[in-house]
Amino acid sequence: MTSLILYTPSGVLAKGGPLKLAAKRLKKLGFDVAIDEAALAKHLRFGGEDDVRLEAIHRVARARPGIALATRGGYGLTRLLDRLDWSLLAASVEAGTRWVGYSDLTALQMGLLAHKKAPTWWGPHACDDFGRDELDEVTPDCFAEAMTGALEAVGFRTESGFDGLDTRGLMWGGNLAMLCSLLGTPHWPKVRGGVLMLEDVGEHPYRVERMLLQLHQAGVLASQKAILLGAFSDWKKSPLDRGYTLKTVVAHLRSLVNVPVLTGFPFGHVPTKVTVPFGVKGHLVVQGRDAFLGWDEDHAHHHPGHDGHGHDHDGHAHHDH
Amino acid sequence: MTSLILYTPSGVLAKGGPLKLAAKRLKKLGFDVAIDEAALAKHLRFGGEDDVRLEAIHRVARARPGIALATRGGYGLTRLLDRLDWSLLAASVEAGTRWVGYSDLTALQMGLLAHKKAPTWWGPHACDDFGRDELDEVTPDCFAEAMTGALEAVGFRTESGFDGLDTRGLMWGGNLAMLCSLLGTPHWPKVRGGVLMLEDVGEHPYRVERMLLQLHQAGVLASQKAILLGAFSDWKKSPLDRGYTLKTVVAHLRSLVNVPVLTGFPFGHVPTKVTVPFGVKGHLVVQGRDAFLGWDEDHAHHHPGHDGHGHDHDGHAHHDH
Repeated sequence: MTSLILYTPSGVLAKGGPLKLAAKRLKKLGFDVAIDEAALAKHLRFGGEDDVRLEAIHRVARARPGIALATRGGYGLTRLLDRLDWSLLAASVEAGTRWVGYSDLTALQMGLLAHKKAPTWWGPHACDDFGRDELDEVTPDCFAEAMTGALEAVGFRTESGFDGLDTRGLMWGGNLAMLCSLLGTPHWPKVRGGVLMLEDVGEHPYRVERMLLQLHQAGVLASQKAILLGAFSDWKKSPLDRGYTLKTVVAHLRSLVNVPVLTGFPFGHVPTKVTVPFGVKGHLVVQGRDAFLGWDEDHAHHHPGHDGHGHDHDGHAHHDH
Repeated sequence: MTSLILYTPSGVLAKGGPLKLAAKRLKKLGFDVAIDEAALAKHLRFGGEDDVRLEAIHRVARARPGIALATRGGYGLTRLLDRLDWSLLAASVEAGTRWVGYSDLTALQMGLLAHKKAPTWWGPHACDDFGRDELDEVTPDCFAEAMTGALEAVGFRTESGFDGLDTRGLMWGGNLAMLCSLLGTPHWPKVRGGVLMLEDVGEHPYRVERMLLQLHQAGVLASQKAILLGAFSDWKKSPLDRGYTLKTVVAHLRSLVNVPVLTGFPFGHVPTKVTVPFGVKGHLVVQGRDAFLGWDEDHAHHHPGHDGHGHDHDGHAHHDH
């Protein structure tokens, strides 16, 4: 059984219920679940004071479980970036630990990529996903297969116009606001020629555009092989929009950069999530409107030999291409 | 009479009324007011298409009025940054044009500082300030005196603990989110040893903190002589805050950087605003809880000789120190 530790690196868990439910469901999926001693710590809006959360992350790294799964995101990792022991975290990755999360976790994932070129995993959180009343069907399946090394590609439906696309590059990205919050700092991963995956929540399209333009003006976008846009969810229209929408943003982005910008990636603050690695070479292929993002499993973990097969977000298995 | 052109570089003006009212009030203040031909242009949420707004800015720069006053902020300058003719804008500054604004205008102001070391002015907008039903008393007085070169210092009440502070440095900053959106791009002004002034609107304190930490991690904050915090207004509390407030943010910032962080500066998306220059040497002095920010007028414009006196935000004149 793969060992899995639940820990709280960022925001406070207001209640213990979702954590219990998540632990139960993860056990049912076949994982050997442990809960970090500070998982329910509380300090203001944080899951414990900075020292408590920092020590929790380092404790998980020293324990080297198969999976280090964040209970939730929120806000908090930014406070720890200058103090994290990147060598300790990278050693756990080298020993086989998969660090999984999204949203605020982007800071940890991209920091590990920046400082140590270490792979991590974009995927669900314990409480936000496994702890919600109604659990999505695809998310746990995809997570479990990715964690056991059985998954090595995900498929999704994208817009027309990209038929025949076949490109490779380092998989990276995450939450757009968190990614931009690393620009100019030592925690920014300087990835060129990559497959950049982006999502955000609660950001009006003009703010999404402003962040994309920052990445563009910083020279980041034009040097990528492909940009995959996930969900940009839970924002409110303004009476001043006058027809300006996320589609306007995507069109403007495409007018600026000569890089394929694919929408429809099941990646974001939405119930249906893929689990995909960061920091490993990806292979993006589009046939008609069907996009497949595969990765080289050997670079994503250290367990040789597996019965690789793919999985699309509608739950249909397919073989790697 | 000082010539003043009203132009729209960013967001759309939904109605013409506030523009008319602003023009009327600015005439009454003694300015020779003209309205740019595209000031009421509309394209989605923008004050005209990108080309229209870009041309409007360049048209104003070629006209070289005494004052180039933005009608409002919003969002839009980010789209133009890579296309602005910085030399044309800098030539207008050299010829005596004062570019005034805040919020989205931060991009233009800091871009001019980054590319040309040219001074600009942080101050009110035509519609947002002079066009509002109830006009603040201090804002127009301070604006008019700053624009005629009569003002060379502003005073404000700050927290105790800074008595005796006396420091000098380049005045810069603006809207925190806009400033951070320039990090990593060619439009970022690399100011060290400055007096950094910051404000924001509609940003939860955790987001303000995240932006401040980005500036800190980028090495920006620790190299300043002083940080002046204006208003951080119009944000909504979250049930998860559990006592986390703007005060928490300021305390955390002070724990990280060994630079005076002064609050209470009348600078932000609030009715009572100072008008102060960017890109000129400032002189910050604190006596008890009274802070005075003065500047060398000779560096802020090109009109020699003036009857300099100061003005605090309660409307009391005081002499430069």
